[in-house]
Amino acid sequence: MPNDRVYLDYAATGPLDERVFDTMLPHLRGAAASNGLSRGNPSSLHASGAAAREAVQEARKSVARLIGATPKEIFFTSGGTESDNLAVLGLAAANLGRRHLVISAVEHAAVRAVATHLEATGYEVTRIGADTDGRVSPDRFKEALRPETVLAAVMWANNEVGAIEPIEELADLCCEANVPFHVDAVQAAGRVPIDVSRVPISTLALSAHKLYGPQGAGALYVREGVELEPLLFGGGQEKGLRSGTENVAGIAGFGEAARLASQELEERVRHEEALREALILGALNIPSVYLNGPRRERLSNNVHLSVEGVEAESLVLFLDALGYAVSSGSACASGGHKASPVLLAMGRSEREAFSALRVTVGKDTTQEEVDGFLEAFTTAVSQLRELSPLYAN
Amino acid sequence: MPNDRVYLDYAATGPLDERVFDTMLPHLRGAAASNGLSRGNPSSLHASGAAAREAVQEARKSVARLIGATPKEIFFTSGGTESDNLAVLGLAAANLGRRHLVISAVEHAAVRAVATHLEATGYEVTRIGADTDGRVSPDRFKEALRPETVLAAVMWANNEVGAIEPIEELADLCCEANVPFHVDAVQAAGRVPIDVSRVPISTLALSAHKLYGPQGAGALYVREGVELEPLLFGGGQEKGLRSGTENVAGIAGFGEAARLASQELEERVRHEEALREALILGALNIPSVYLNGPRRERLSNNVHLSVEGVEAESLVLFLDALGYAVSSGSACASGGHKASPVLLAMGRSEREAFSALRVTVGKDTTQEEVDGFLEAFTTAVSQLRELSPLYAN
Repeated sequence: MPNDRVYLDYAATGPLDERVFDTMLPHLRGAAASNGLSRGNPSSLHASGAAAREAVQEARKSVARLIGATPKEIFFTSGGTESDNLAVLGLAAANLGRRHLVISAVEHAAVRAVATHLEATGYEVTRIGADTDGRVSPDRFKEALRPETVLAAVMWANNEVGAIEPIEELADLCCEANVPFHVDAVQAAGRVPIDVSRVPISTLALSAHKLYGPQGAGALYVREGVELEPLLFGGGQEKGLRSGTENVAGIAGFGEAARLASQELEERVRHEEALREALILGALNIPSVYLNGPRRERLSNNVHLSVEGVEAESLVLFLDALGYAVSSGSACASGGHKASPVLLAMGRSEREAFSALRVTVGKDTTQEEVDGFLEAFTTAVSQLRELSPLYAN
Repeated sequence: MPNDRVYLDYAATGPLDERVFDTMLPHLRGAAASNGLSRGNPSSLHASGAAAREAVQEARKSVARLIGATPKEIFFTSGGTESDNLAVLGLAAANLGRRHLVISAVEHAAVRAVATHLEATGYEVTRIGADTDGRVSPDRFKEALRPETVLAAVMWANNEVGAIEPIEELADLCCEANVPFHVDAVQAAGRVPIDVSRVPISTLALSAHKLYGPQGAGALYVREGVELEPLLFGGGQEKGLRSGTENVAGIAGFGEAARLASQELEERVRHEEALREALILGALNIPSVYLNGPRRERLSNNVHLSVEGVEAESLVLFLDALGYAVSSGSACASGGHKASPVLLAMGRSEREAFSALRVTVGKDTTQEEVDGFLEAFTTAVSQLRELSPLYAN
């Protein structure tokens, strides 16, 4: 069956790279994939165990290389959410004397929700608002840091509006204030050059499936010397920080995805930026369609639009029927019809938040797909506006 | 390359069933696997998201069916360790007034370690010893339950010596005492018939990779009405109990593995029991080799031997060189050379614990593999004993 559907929701999850799949295969199928060994558990002494161990170590090197870390600073987890939770809860538990957190108001749900959880257990949380482009002000950030701040958390790039945050500057402020700094780099990794050897970040969260790797694999970078309590207790895997049998195929796939991302980053960014610009230009040709998020400090693959007079969910479903997969916001929240806290933090009204559309491209997106999308989008907007009581034609 | 290595470490991890692999494939490769849709995020509104959601729901039904639960009582996690941790920490957090735990001394590391963690934060933990076969006494268990007991945890079957615990009886005692009861069924599922509709268990942990499913996928059964706090906070997936983008391929594979386990349970058990008996008979022919664990209430695939005068690690490496993958204990602990707490709890000496070998078969093990193993084992034992200062020939 030919695939004539067009996927433009790479920020939610991207396709698995075929090279990543090939790397995972022997760890999924074992002997059936003709490496001659049954699938192993990395804690086993025998040859199958050793092969699994080696694959995990190889992946650790590739993930470390992507962000300028050393392999021993990389801890594999089940994904971005677990990495964010491990960082925030782990830093808080390791420094019980301090009971104040600073986060940005545009954080991913994984950071927002875990901060709210800590708040319910007696922590104080300062939420730094964003400007109308979704960017955090270093001045306001600096003011919020206190001697009793146990950690500050700001994402490297926003999953909804694509704003790239001034992480280097914020990291320096944390360093001066002696506050551990956690960065969610789930959307940034592979699109923004990251080098933790030059930026004083304490912990950094990564997810494989946003990088053309498998779902169910992620990592937390923990700078050498930073103390962290585990979330999961058991067999003591990952030097005791993350117990549980390693997802070897997932980790091996993550490693290959990270290796490819390091290698192809510039080329991918160039390709995506051209498509992004075409999308923005085309979309802004339609009356009363606006771009959210910054014009420059923006993820190479992100276009985020407000479409006056149209409910985003209707637009997503209409476009889906025409064969185009896009998003009404982040896909990181399950169910529930709530206005995006990110857009509200940027000063948008609830009504504006409900008319927001996220279109995200990837390394395999083509100019033809973008052209087709723009045509479908134009049709969808005009047809939905005709039906809309909210829009005066 | 032909695979002439013999894998007899199914308790550590088994091979992925080819039918499971086929089920995972479209969720790994998406369009490349010709289902016409890109890999989706179950939280996305579009068709790719809907396909991912459906796959997760389908898997939920199959996992529920394996243990007699309803689909809404199944919560997907990253594996057995997370499931055990979520149950123990989640039950404790949901009932903050009670600060006493009861666990068996032969629990999996995931339960033992999380109980020790709670102990460090002010909980009292009662550890029920086991008899010389590794079984928990219902009388001693009953005595340990108190009004302030927040939960009791006993595994359905032991991962080292294969003992099947009297779960029905223990569950009734918990029910009478009004104490939530957590059961680690990671080794039991697919080998012991489990029906939570008939046994008053509160929570039950499952892992896919011990069932010929993928690594990195597990589930927690939570009986309707049982209150549990989440471990991971974020997008609110799994009805808020387990945030994080679902590992769709892993979950789909788990579902298929569970479906096959339900369907083939009796046939698999019959097959494994015959091989287990052949292994036990053959091994006990060697002088000063003893069987650990019960003779009857024992997992169909487990053989656990003490080999006098031989260090188990040497034996594992020797057998590995001959092409046979077996284990010196559980593979669930990472690194470290410590005597098995399970064997110590059964009254074995440290020296005896260090001479213990676990041989575990699976549905695809053949009589020829067992025969070959027995020959290699006999050779290995006699050669190592010749070198051993511990053994008087």
